Amino acid sequence: MHIHETRTQVAIVGAGPAGLTLSHLLAAQGIDSVVVEIRERHEIEGTIRAGILEQGTVDLLSGSGIDTRVHTEGARHDGIELRFDGRGHRIDFARHVGRSVWLYPQHEVLKDLIATRVRDGADLRFGVSDVVVDGVGGTEPEVAFTDRDGTRTRLRCDVVAGCDGSAGVSRNAFPDGTAQDHFRTYPFGWFGILAEAPPSAPELIYTHSERGFALISSRTPTVQRMYFQCDPREDPADWSDARIWDELQARVAGEDGFSLKEGRIFQRGVIPMRSYVRTPMRHGRLLLAGDAAHTVPPTGAKGLNLAMADVQVLARTLTDFFGSGDEGTLDTYGPTALRRVWRAQHFSYWMTSMLHTDPAGSDFDLNRQRGELDSVTSSAAGSTYLAEAYTGWPLSL
Amino acid sequence: MHIHETRTQVAIVGAGPAGLTLSHLLAAQGIDSVVVEIRERHEIEGTIRAGILEQGTVDLLSGSGIDTRVHTEGARHDGIELRFDGRGHRIDFARHVGRSVWLYPQHEVLKDLIATRVRDGADLRFGVSDVVVDGVGGTEPEVAFTDRDGTRTRLRCDVVAGCDGSAGVSRNAFPDGTAQDHFRTYPFGWFGILAEAPPSAPELIYTHSERGFALISSRTPTVQRMYFQCDPREDPADWSDARIWDELQARVAGEDGFSLKEGRIFQRGVIPMRSYVRTPMRHGRLLLAGDAAHTVPPTGAKGLNLAMADVQVLARTLTDFFGSGDEGTLDTYGPTALRRVWRAQHFSYWMTSMLHTDPAGSDFDLNRQRGELDSVTSSAAGSTYLAEAYTGWPLSL
Repeated sequence: MHIHETRTQVAIVGAGPAGLTLSHLLAAQGIDSVVVEIRERHEIEGTIRAGILEQGTVDLLSGSGIDTRVHTEGARHDGIELRFDGRGHRIDFARHVGRSVWLYPQHEVLKDLIATRVRDGADLRFGVSDVVVDGVGGTEPEVAFTDRDGTRTRLRCDVVAGCDGSAGVSRNAFPDGTAQDHFRTYPFGWFGILAEAPPSAPELIYTHSERGFALISSRTPTVQRMYFQCDPREDPADWSDARIWDELQARVAGEDGFSLKEGRIFQRGVIPMRSYVRTPMRHGRLLLAGDAAHTVPPTGAKGLNLAMADVQVLARTLTDFFGSGDEGTLDTYGPTALRRVWRAQHFSYWMTSMLHTDPAGSDFDLNRQRGELDSVTSSAAGSTYLAEAYTGWPLSL
Repeated sequence: MHIHETRTQVAIVGAGPAGLTLSHLLAAQGIDSVVVEIRERHEIEGTIRAGILEQGTVDLLSGSGIDTRVHTEGARHDGIELRFDGRGHRIDFARHVGRSVWLYPQHEVLKDLIATRVRDGADLRFGVSDVVVDGVGGTEPEVAFTDRDGTRTRLRCDVVAGCDGSAGVSRNAFPDGTAQDHFRTYPFGWFGILAEAPPSAPELIYTHSERGFALISSRTPTVQRMYFQCDPREDPADWSDARIWDELQARVAGEDGFSLKEGRIFQRGVIPMRSYVRTPMRHGRLLLAGDAAHTVPPTGAKGLNLAMADVQVLARTLTDFFGSGDEGTLDTYGPTALRRVWRAQHFSYWMTSMLHTDPAGSDFDLNRQRGELDSVTSSAAGSTYLAEAYTGWPLSL
């Protein structure tokens, strides 16, 4: 087999939000990179995924030369509703923290990022296979992969950025015993649907009820995304449309008469709720970012935003590294990124445990949760504390 | 046996902070009461118990004609320290909420209350036995008891206030099936000591460490109160003074070199950590207040303060009741009191779960807790939210 050899400064494994944004930020600093990705471009752009963008993520997209449509096609949300005891309580982000979030799906972010990188002449390798990360313990690491046409490429580099998510190869390139994996599994999942229906509310609704959590979200004026807490082993095939709507309606029902606008359900599935953190986030010349390093349950809408925060720190670190040649600069990335990661893990845990019912819990817990929701929503400080986290802490945490 | 009969408007069972304060507040409204208590006055006044008084509790004591020494003998605390990762982080109550708490032991509060009630000619019956609460389902309830000299008294009344704590008889006077008991037991206890030593710090220190929680508190300039999280079945006899000090020092140790001032340990014991709420708080003409209706773990310092909040609501309710003769006014007490109770239950749970290590927890949880403590202490809103709860929500919640 012919082996092609090439070289770059930073080999980026994974063309998700983390990898593409990192490539863009490095280019702005004159640092060369190659992005390798096992999926094809159309797969990435066609996989519909949720996206609540923090103010800081939007600022990054729109302020760093990325050709983004977030301001024209995204929807700015100035608050969320916490619903409990059959009543809605709005957390007003704009009033409490002067910041907002944007509903703008992740695949739209990816389209923007890919278009921008292509525009700028970036070296993006989609549809590769057999990706191997090697030599990261030394100063000449490499990423090997096979192109669509069967050509094996050895991409030599100074640094490997592992941005290939929780199922990628980067995480596994740490030698045994050099890292610790921190897990938490929640005793419930989310039953998610996409439905053809008009929006039931102008902002996201996070509902606590005796029957469990529900999240009412929107994709477009005609497509709605809704979730309800379920057994993680629940089989979507056991649920008729009518049963799904009955369950969702029961969870949001209240004395205010609020109800959901129903429609044809065209997608359904159960997602698990997990937390994961790899520490350290670096081994030698391999640095992990985004889902490759950590997973959060979706309750806090932090996954994509954490990835974007990671790569901003990583881009600064690599700029320092290539500027100074000092290996020690690489030490600063992980601890800085991890401070935000652990805060986000807590926030995601907090939102999850405040709003979901614990299958092993008691009536005491239900009432205590109502007490917490009452405290948070009736206190400007409590609402502000939640809004700060939801809209995103400043990058200079 | 001779049975003495007498009558009052409100028969108050229990001469703790709730019962005595209620009696005082009712007297100010011209409502007659009798307080019956199984302990002797000297026992009540001599049982040393902790006391962190919320601003509202101090305002009540000093603003309602109670002859209190809280301002001369109590110590005002304008903050607490949250200590984690070996560093202290002060929550500045005065700055964040303009309120404070007072360190003033519960038995000193009781001395003040008893002296005030005696001064005002109240009918207090200490040292009674065989207390029976009866007829609360009708309009002519009564409390029967036996005096020190063996005389049985039937105290007829309009209303019975059950203020006799978690081991009292009032709670058990609800007929079967008329109430629900909500429990939570924590998988740890507090190992508490009293030591002859100077204070180690000017304010309370709540410490989170990998070894578990510790609380550094003070009684007087020469007597210190400290606690550390332990197995609830821990036997104090297994712990030498040296071992206790080693454990406490290890939990507060940090890069700032902080250490505890040691001294002779003259009292030690293990207390359980429990939450309890009775709902409803009323059956017919029997209304519960304070520990008779609810127990909180001590982490949030809410027990005494909840009792004082309860009886302020109850005094208003009874004033309305005796003014209008409308039975319906009695319905307002429980729901109003319970709103604060559930918020306080959550706050106590929050402080407990944020600061203690879960025996079944993982390294993920330890790091998540550090992430939460980092978020709370580095956010003015988070610190304010905690300070609001610790110093006490306003009575008109």
